[in-house]
This record gives sequence, C-alpha cells and structure tokens, in this order.
Amino acid sequence: MNFTKMHGLGNDFVLVCQVQAPSQTEMSTLARKMCDRHLGVGADGLVAVYPSASADVAMRIFNSDGTLAEQCGNAMRCVARYYYERISSEKTEFAIETKVGVQPVWIIEERGKVKQVRVDMGKPVLVPKQIPVLAAGELAVNKVIRANDKTFRFSAVSMGNPHAVIEVNEAEKFPVDVWGPLLESHEIFPQKANIEFVTYHSPQEVTMRVWERGVGQTMACGSGACATVVAGFLSGRCGRKVLVHLPGGDLMVEWDEQDQHVYMTGPAEFVFDGAWLS
Amino acid sequence: MNFTKMHGLGNDFVLVCQVQAPSQTEMSTLARKMCDRHLGVGADGLVAVYPSASADVAMRIFNSDGTLAEQCGNAMRCVARYYYERISSEKTEFAIETKVGVQPVWIIEERGKVKQVRVDMGKPVLVPKQIPVLAAGELAVNKVIRANDKTFRFSAVSMGNPHAVIEVNEAEKFPVDVWGPLLESHEIFPQKANIEFVTYHSPQEVTMRVWERGVGQTMACGSGACATVVAGFLSGRCGRKVLVHLPGGDLMVEWDEQDQHVYMTGPAEFVFDGAWLS
Repeated sequence: MNFTKMHGLGNDFVLVCQVQAPSQTEMSTLARKMCDRHLGVGADGLVAVYPSASADVAMRIFNSDGTLAEQCGNAMRCVARYYYERISSEKTEFAIETKVGVQPVWIIEERGKVKQVRVDMGKPVLVPKQIPVLAAGELAVNKVIRANDKTFRFSAVSMGNPHAVIEVNEAEKFPVDVWGPLLESHEIFPQKANIEFVTYHSPQEVTMRVWERGVGQTMACGSGACATVVAGFLSGRCGRKVLVHLPGGDLMVEWDEQDQHVYMTGPAEFVFDGAWLS
Repeated sequence: MNFTKMHGLGNDFVLVCQVQAPSQTEMSTLARKMCDRHLGVGADGLVAVYPSASADVAMRIFNSDGTLAEQCGNAMRCVARYYYERISSEKTEFAIETKVGVQPVWIIEERGKVKQVRVDMGKPVLVPKQIPVLAAGELAVNKVIRANDKTFRFSAVSMGNPHAVIEVNEAEKFPVDVWGPLLESHEIFPQKANIEFVTYHSPQEVTMRVWERGVGQTMACGSGACATVVAGFLSGRCGRKVLVHLPGGDLMVEWDEQDQHVYMTGPAEFVFDGAWLS
C-alpha cells in the first residue's frame, strides 16, 4: 500500500489515497499500526483521501489510537496541498468534504510553487454553556481562574473543542508543562480544555504555546491559534487579523467580520512517499 | 533519495543504500533531518549501507543527533536482512564491515523466509577499570550500590559500552523510570552506565528492562541483553545460552565458551520503502 507523509507545523499525518470511502474498522486498525512511531510509519494521524459526491475530494482523519477524529486544520491544509499537487491543479479554490461538512480551502502560490494553504475553521462558539465552561454572563472573557497558589485571567472559546486562552508575560519562557495539566483539568471546564499561554506583542502579532487536552505540550495547534485571536479580539488585546507564532512555525489567523468564520493560513509540507511493507 | 525503514525489536532505523562510502558531514546533516519524528521520517538512527573492500557490505550508523554511532546489534541485524533480501541472497553467512571492524552475521530462515538474524557482539570486557566502574577486584560481580535509601546488588560488564545488571523480583513491574536515572549517573560509573533490571526465571530464561545511558527507558537494548547473560553467568544465575525477554520482543543470547564472544539472535523487520521529498 502506498502512502504519503506530510506535516503542518510539525503536526504530522500519513495520507492514503483511495478509490472509495474507507472502511472505518480497517482504517482504525491501520491507524494504530501505521501511526506507531517505532514499529510503524509514525504520525499523529492517518488520513484517508477519497472521491466525494458533494465536494472536490473527501477526507477522514483517524487518530493514532484508532478513533475517528473530529476535524483538524493542520490535516486539512495537508489534504488541500496533496489534492492540488497530486490529484488536480485545475483550481486554487476548492472544497473538501470532512466529517463535519464541506469546507472551502484556498491554495496560495508564490512563483508557481505552493506556499501556503488557507482553510475555513468555522464560527467560534462563545456561549459559556456550549464551550463548555462554568462562567456567568454571555461571554467567558477576562475571567479569573485559580490553580494552586496562582491566579490567571482567561477567556474561553470553542472552535469545536474547548480552549482557554491565558495571557502571560513571556509565552516563550512560560512553564507550560507545570500549569498546562493543572488548568486542563480544572473543575470549571466540565470537558477539560486546551490551554493556550499567549503574549500579545502588538494588535497584529502574538506568540502562543499550547497544552493540548489529553495530549500535552505540542508544537502547534491550529484551533488553539484561532481561539487565541478570537479571545484576544474580544478582550481588546489584538485585531481581527493576527500573525500567530507557535513553536512549530507561524499561522495567519483572520476572524472575518462579515461571516464570523475564522480563517487560518499556514504551510503544509511533503516529507516522503512510502510503500508500506508490513 | 530512496530509503528503507526497518526495526529490530522497536529500535528503528532509516537505511540508505549508496554506491560509495558516505560523506560524514552530509550523513550527519541528513541524520538530524530524517530522524526527526515529526518533521522527518523518524528513527533512532540513519544507517548508510555501501560496498566494502574488506567484507560483503559496509555500514555506518548515525545517531539522530548527527553523531557517528559506535555499533549496534539491532541495526546490524537490520543491515544483514536488508543485504540478504535486497542485494545478494547468495549465502546465509556473510560479513559486514562496521566502524569497529568486520563482523560475521548469519541469516536464519524458516520455510524459505528470513526468521532471525544472528550477529557477533564481540567479547565482553570484565576488568572494572576498562568498563569503567569503580570496584575492587578482578571482576565487578555481585557488588553493592546505594541510591537514596535503597541498596542494590549489581554486576558490571562492558559490551563496548558500560552496563550494570541488577537483579530484581519482578522486572516487569519494577519502577525503571525512578531508579534508572539515579543509578545511571551514580559516582561509581565514571562514564555513566546503562542499567538493566532483570529477573532470572530459570538458567535459560530471563526478563529484562533497560534504562539506556543518555536516552531513558527503551523497548530493547541488544548490548544490554548480552550484558545480562554475561553478568548472570558470572554470578551463577543463568547458563551461557539464554532467552532474554525485552519489552520489544525476545533475543537469544549465547556466550560462547570457546571464543568468548557473545552471539545474539533476533528479528529484523521491514516497515516501509520511502522516497524522501524534502
């Protein structure tokens, strides 16, 4: 079986191109085998790419534990570039069918080469009950949270998954490994939360480090970058279009005033093509 | 550039086949890139396989940090199988030129398929000064070591790298992560040491878990399995031919009475062939 390894800011995926929708059981077993970083190919997820009846192409992501993943901006950028360079370069704007619906994507070229991919991350959810976060009021913006002897101010946003964005002095040096796990499991987050530690440098630029729910510290989290800009705008700390620096690289995030969708632009890289022998 | 991913008990390598000896600078750079588990192929090491003037084939191992590795039994088994199945299946016994000399290897087939590979791990070094370990006497066998509030009995052996073998009640359940780092850096090991926690089930069978020097807990350590049998034989806990169970799988280790070499037999698996795109 042939596959292609790609990554978006270090969030890495094995892509397999198929002629029809994959069997969930087969993909689940394959994901566990192939994603193993010592015995398999090694990846955060296995992505099936196949023909769609409702969009230009369809994708499904399987986590390394075999479960079907919700959606992931980093994986969607990889699939968009894969489709454009390996399947059809007819148009630079096309649609991908995902588990949560049909999503538009844009290929951004520079001197004839794919430079970036823009994806639609949807509308943020701001109602505390729906995020979910235990907070009074219509928005969970600039709220107080205590962990051990320390008090933080946070804003909570859901991008399909719950995020708490916390402003700190120097995100680059912040002990994410210490406070991330404590805040992730805090009682005010009934379904736990991804925790972003951010420093706003200007209304157009922010540095972010992330503690991902159930995972730990990672090099990049697309939905976390989006949550950071939404939270920053709501609390008056940044504009609607912001360059987000993450340990894995940069993302440009834009919260559109008209349609209220969050758009994320970033890289997607080919690493290698492979033929699975196991 | 084409490559092949293989592993021996989960100790995994990227093999590149070349027409001549590789440039050390180029390989060093490539190893750092390719061994990265998120941005590259992901492996414990990059192995160059190329023609030899003094043996059937030559190999050099580069660690993931770009340094040239000494030698590694797991990698040698992979190269042996690779040579036999991809380059020449003329004979099942042949010689591999490594950094430390020419080494014999044996391919063991079962029903026409490669089942195991046997490699010569050389003579163990038993003189305390040469291991090195600070211990009185001709051998460092059944010595006492204290860490925190606990006393352990250990035997030290070098297989080209220093090992301390410690017998424990149930190796499967032993807190390797707690005691490994404390013992690795103990003052009696001037160059630190790999620490093996072992339970001898019978003179022919032992379970071992390992804390590798500078690495941490791993699924398998070939030289550690050899050290375990040498130490076990010297302290009267096992015979000269022993099946060693490791978290990554089994190795058969034999300390030959005639030539005093240690021979290790175990699996080597193909995972995938790849074409590097970066």
